[in-house]
Amino acid sequence: MRKIVIIPDSFKGTMRSGEICRLVGQEVRRFFPDISILPIPVADGGEGTVDAFLAALPGERIPVTVKNPFLEDMECFYGITGQSNTAVIEMSSCAGLPLAEGRPDPSRTTTYGVGQMMTDAAKRGCTEIIVGLGGSCTNDCCAGAASACGIRFFDKDGNEFLPTGGSLSRVAHIDDSGLDPLLRRCRVTAMCDIDCTLYGENGAAYLFAPQKGADADMVKLLDNGLRSISAVIEHDLGKKSAALPGAGAAGGMGAGMDAFFGAGLKSGIETLLDTIGFDDLARGADLIISGEGRLDSQSLRGKAVIGTAHRAKKLGIPLIAVVGDICGDISDVYEEGVTAVFSTNREAIPGSEAKKRSREDLVLAVDNLMRLLSSLHV
Amino acid sequence: MRKIVIIPDSFKGTMRSGEICRLVGQEVRRFFPDISILPIPVADGGEGTVDAFLAALPGERIPVTVKNPFLEDMECFYGITGQSNTAVIEMSSCAGLPLAEGRPDPSRTTTYGVGQMMTDAAKRGCTEIIVGLGGSCTNDCCAGAASACGIRFFDKDGNEFLPTGGSLSRVAHIDDSGLDPLLRRCRVTAMCDIDCTLYGENGAAYLFAPQKGADADMVKLLDNGLRSISAVIEHDLGKKSAALPGAGAAGGMGAGMDAFFGAGLKSGIETLLDTIGFDDLARGADLIISGEGRLDSQSLRGKAVIGTAHRAKKLGIPLIAVVGDICGDISDVYEEGVTAVFSTNREAIPGSEAKKRSREDLVLAVDNLMRLLSSLHV
Repeated sequence: MRKIVIIPDSFKGTMRSGEICRLVGQEVRRFFPDISILPIPVADGGEGTVDAFLAALPGERIPVTVKNPFLEDMECFYGITGQSNTAVIEMSSCAGLPLAEGRPDPSRTTTYGVGQMMTDAAKRGCTEIIVGLGGSCTNDCCAGAASACGIRFFDKDGNEFLPTGGSLSRVAHIDDSGLDPLLRRCRVTAMCDIDCTLYGENGAAYLFAPQKGADADMVKLLDNGLRSISAVIEHDLGKKSAALPGAGAAGGMGAGMDAFFGAGLKSGIETLLDTIGFDDLARGADLIISGEGRLDSQSLRGKAVIGTAHRAKKLGIPLIAVVGDICGDISDVYEEGVTAVFSTNREAIPGSEAKKRSREDLVLAVDNLMRLLSSLHV
Repeated sequence: MRKIVIIPDSFKGTMRSGEICRLVGQEVRRFFPDISILPIPVADGGEGTVDAFLAALPGERIPVTVKNPFLEDMECFYGITGQSNTAVIEMSSCAGLPLAEGRPDPSRTTTYGVGQMMTDAAKRGCTEIIVGLGGSCTNDCCAGAASACGIRFFDKDGNEFLPTGGSLSRVAHIDDSGLDPLLRRCRVTAMCDIDCTLYGENGAAYLFAPQKGADADMVKLLDNGLRSISAVIEHDLGKKSAALPGAGAAGGMGAGMDAFFGAGLKSGIETLLDTIGFDDLARGADLIISGEGRLDSQSLRGKAVIGTAHRAKKLGIPLIAVVGDICGDISDVYEEGVTAVFSTNREAIPGSEAKKRSREDLVLAVDNLMRLLSSLHV
């Protein structure tokens, strides 16, 4: 083997993708000392997304002062990849759950800082803006970010205000004529791996607001708010954003990104692969190693291994997935381009014990695989 | 790939080696339709040993009426492989634990039937006799089998008797002059994977008699008997059999086989590999698949995977082990000739659950492996 691509997702709750890249790369190098290794940590839009892009592409972290979920100033960052004038923003960096620790309240928190980073990126000349959704403490349907970019929200008496989750129902009119012209010419993409609807029992509030600190009454309030603003969006902006798959992601951020910025909602892995130009990077590789914490029938829907496998199949490169658990019938993954799947489980032990030794077991699994490949003179 | 050897041990408590051969072979065939498959089920001397030899070599099952552990007649069998006039006898077939069900008593049970099969085989012209130890309900130090072959045991008053576990202490003199002359010219091998000593705290009685139905007092009685007869053996036959590794296997059968028949004690896998002429059979194979229920540091001592790996290494054939659990640090197995080891565990679940799905998981593991090998054009 002369060239290998290592492109794992994180093993949720145990290892980040960057660490997995490093561990796998070390083992590969032991058996193939002269091999060219291309490590691409995968992120899904949540924490670590900026670093994942910057690991695969040249670029830099841009420090920036923006509003936190409670409209207080905070030091934050996003990434710009110099090559393509592309900004990568993690929503969670200024509207993430940890930022509301001690005072969680999805009725009050805002995504304002996200909009500030978007305008900052546009000012610096970016024409592509990628916003990673996920891990949010907000439920404001992107109204905060939109406000920061010049879109104005009014109540029924014509008073302008900054809507948050708890006051979305008060929005009677939206005026998007003030949207920053620099942003108008940007292509915005929202990375989003969640398919939930905007409102209702399978919507943002009912599914995710409880973990953001909402009690039953607040969930109802938030759900009504999302339902209400989606009607205003449809009336004033002509957008049926609530119906999109992923509309409810990150407290309605999916719907709002579409409504206010015309953003495409795209899976994390597809966004990453397209942005870094994966096909060109991987061309000529002898092997791709991917992985994730758990491979199951859900994995067929746009997760890291399968998304990468589709490209591998097209490129004619074998792809081996090294995963934590293989759950249920995953035989379809082979059709999708996965050559083989190996679990890191060595012993029948409960998941809680397996987690403790996940690093060691990953290393041993890759070591074993490399022994096989090197002895077969692949 | 044009030729593959499938040589798994049983997965203790879940699958017999013959079934594993069949399941693995089916999956191999799906991906390599024209391949030549050589299935060799492994047995360790216990139940299934005769069938294992007859699966790998031409031969037949010989039905025979012999004494059961309580000296009652029973229908039994052993194997003769026509090629080499070799008899294969499972001790457990006429002195096995299930035969004492309802009346377990290692002080009274005898291995007499084993000796009957040995003389029967010698009469039929066999010159090699392999006796698989293990799974016994006896503790008679092989005295029963020896008696059946013409060796005589006397008490201090010169009365001849048939010693069993409980009466070994009464043996004051052994006369082996009556040993069947046909047996004298046979080479006898005892298959034995247990290293325990004949007597004492790590001896046959203390370690294994309780599971054969002995209480604490009987264990002492049995242990004293083994100690006592070993002194007579040393005095009358000039053999220090008690000191051999494996002397205590199967209720002292290891020591007795050496003392009375000059048998070599040999690991099950080495006996099998030598008898079937493994090196010649396997030569030219592209791959060997072995396996066992559990691979651990103990596996380095003569168990199926490692024993086969030593041959594979000499022959320059890659060996892949597909095992149930991989326990502890097994990195040494690679030095011994194992190319790669894959666990059938796909998911972190307790052993009790894993056992229920062991067949399915084995098939999936081999399917996955064959996908890899076929896509790599091995």
